[in-house]
Amino acid sequence: MLAITEYREVFLKYLEEKITIKEPANLYEPMVYILGLGGKRLRPVLVLMATEIFEKDYKEALDASLAIEIFHNFSLVHDDIMDDAPLRRGKETVHEKWDINTGILSGDAMLINAYQLFENYEGNTFKELAQLFTKTAMEVCEGQQYDIDFETRDDVSIDDYLKMIEYKTAVLVGASLQMGAIVAGVDEDCKKAIYQFGRLLGIAFQLQDDYLDAFGDPKTFGKQVGGDIIENKKTFLYLKSLQASSEDEAKQLEYLYSINPEDNSGKIETVKSIFQKSGAAKSTKEEIEKYTKMAFDVLDEISISEEKKKPLRDFGNLLMNRTV
Amino acid sequence: MLAITEYREVFLKYLEEKITIKEPANLYEPMVYILGLGGKRLRPVLVLMATEIFEKDYKEALDASLAIEIFHNFSLVHDDIMDDAPLRRGKETVHEKWDINTGILSGDAMLINAYQLFENYEGNTFKELAQLFTKTAMEVCEGQQYDIDFETRDDVSIDDYLKMIEYKTAVLVGASLQMGAIVAGVDEDCKKAIYQFGRLLGIAFQLQDDYLDAFGDPKTFGKQVGGDIIENKKTFLYLKSLQASSEDEAKQLEYLYSINPEDNSGKIETVKSIFQKSGAAKSTKEEIEKYTKMAFDVLDEISISEEKKKPLRDFGNLLMNRTV
Repeated sequence: MLAITEYREVFLKYLEEKITIKEPANLYEPMVYILGLGGKRLRPVLVLMATEIFEKDYKEALDASLAIEIFHNFSLVHDDIMDDAPLRRGKETVHEKWDINTGILSGDAMLINAYQLFENYEGNTFKELAQLFTKTAMEVCEGQQYDIDFETRDDVSIDDYLKMIEYKTAVLVGASLQMGAIVAGVDEDCKKAIYQFGRLLGIAFQLQDDYLDAFGDPKTFGKQVGGDIIENKKTFLYLKSLQASSEDEAKQLEYLYSINPEDNSGKIETVKSIFQKSGAAKSTKEEIEKYTKMAFDVLDEISISEEKKKPLRDFGNLLMNRTV
Repeated sequence: MLAITEYREVFLKYLEEKITIKEPANLYEPMVYILGLGGKRLRPVLVLMATEIFEKDYKEALDASLAIEIFHNFSLVHDDIMDDAPLRRGKETVHEKWDINTGILSGDAMLINAYQLFENYEGNTFKELAQLFTKTAMEVCEGQQYDIDFETRDDVSIDDYLKMIEYKTAVLVGASLQMGAIVAGVDEDCKKAIYQFGRLLGIAFQLQDDYLDAFGDPKTFGKQVGGDIIENKKTFLYLKSLQASSEDEAKQLEYLYSINPEDNSGKIETVKSIFQKSGAAKSTKEEIEKYTKMAFDVLDEISISEEKKKPLRDFGNLLMNRTV
């Protein structure tokens, strides 16, 4: 098996070869642009890794891995319009560089293009890949809708939140791994187990992202620390704090999440101290541990050799230590 | 075989049964809304008709016909955002009734939902349907992009225009018929021929739409007569007029297509008289005849009984006389 960085290299080479500007250029240029902006390429790497773990040449999975990466970028293009985001990976978003209409239409074309890539697989494999893809893509849309709905709802439960991040983020991690398993042609149990490993790890990853957003090291986190607090995002930390705080502190927290001060530093500090004092910071860390452990437990049960499990375990550890 | 109105009834019953509001409601409500706004349901009726023409029970094609109608409505939702259109079939557009973000996201979900419906067909039929759908959907996006590009281009040729309407409108008519043929499991030649019949008829239909936009009877046309002229749309009539007019009249026409007067009535009358005088109105009618004849010629060649061809011929005639 290759190292993670090698899979990434191989994938990038394939991406560059396959994703080129065709006519009408205004439809395809934004696609080439967003796919060229970089990123960790976690999802396509997972597709390729899973294929080799299940004893098939990763080259067979290149089209599936490209489909997953194109879909991920489609969702970024449309989400960035919805969030009115000016920047993506430090560069202009598609709708900023072009306009909203271009973002909508080239996003649509990307979603369709993802399906096109599955055509390189024969009938039943094609159906299995497309079916998993469709189910996952629908869940990602539902997750995005829940996320939007939560902004204006004041009755979001922790279970609601966990379902939202599962749909919006985690299912695509699970599906990436399962696609590798489908290309490799393994049995249903293996497919289900590898999907669960990815799904659980994906939830742990998103919870960790929430945690680091408040308590991460500004030097290594990559995004603005406190960003979720500034945007009044109802994350696990916030919902758990509301639940675990005294009535007074819960009220203070709700108040702080209703204002948008010019200078956010005071708000961020107060919110963070409530997150700590309420025990929510600790509970979040425990929840991350719990999901990570569940993911590794599922991995233990998969009937492949320890040697084959190691790359997935390493990947999980790497992901949770955030050096990827 | 059923009558066109009967196929429509059957389709509407299936639509109502299958398209219901699920959670999250904000994602699915707009879908139910737009699909319930009415319309002629030409495309799904064509899927069902083609299936029976090729000797298979139309019920087998209900999911494919629903996929086509959902896709068509997805494209309306996203196009209406791009065109900033307030009304669709006399009712508020999705982005007006909700907002742009809702239009984007529920449109995305509709596109994915269309693929989901093909899952009710086995491996190879599934692949064939999804593959044709993907090719067609991509062309529809490309057609929409060409249409947008043409707004700001002053070098649009008649061939460019014909390619645009082929992609934006006609290929979906062809694909609807071919889907019926795929479900019926006929040979490749039949599939290709029925697709060509639909594609050619679709081009004729769109050219006629352009013609009626200027010269239609306000009582029966359904849309505002002169709408394309008001919007300075470079239709076949306009492009042909530019080509066939004297230099002075071409300049006048270009000038008229650069202004947006408050009162459009004078502009509409002048433009229409140029369309007539230049011979473009006549050429457009001839072009419509040409494509309709080509469509019927293709139909003649298909190896099915005259009795089976009749409904398609009737449908074509009905479509071209616009009483459907």
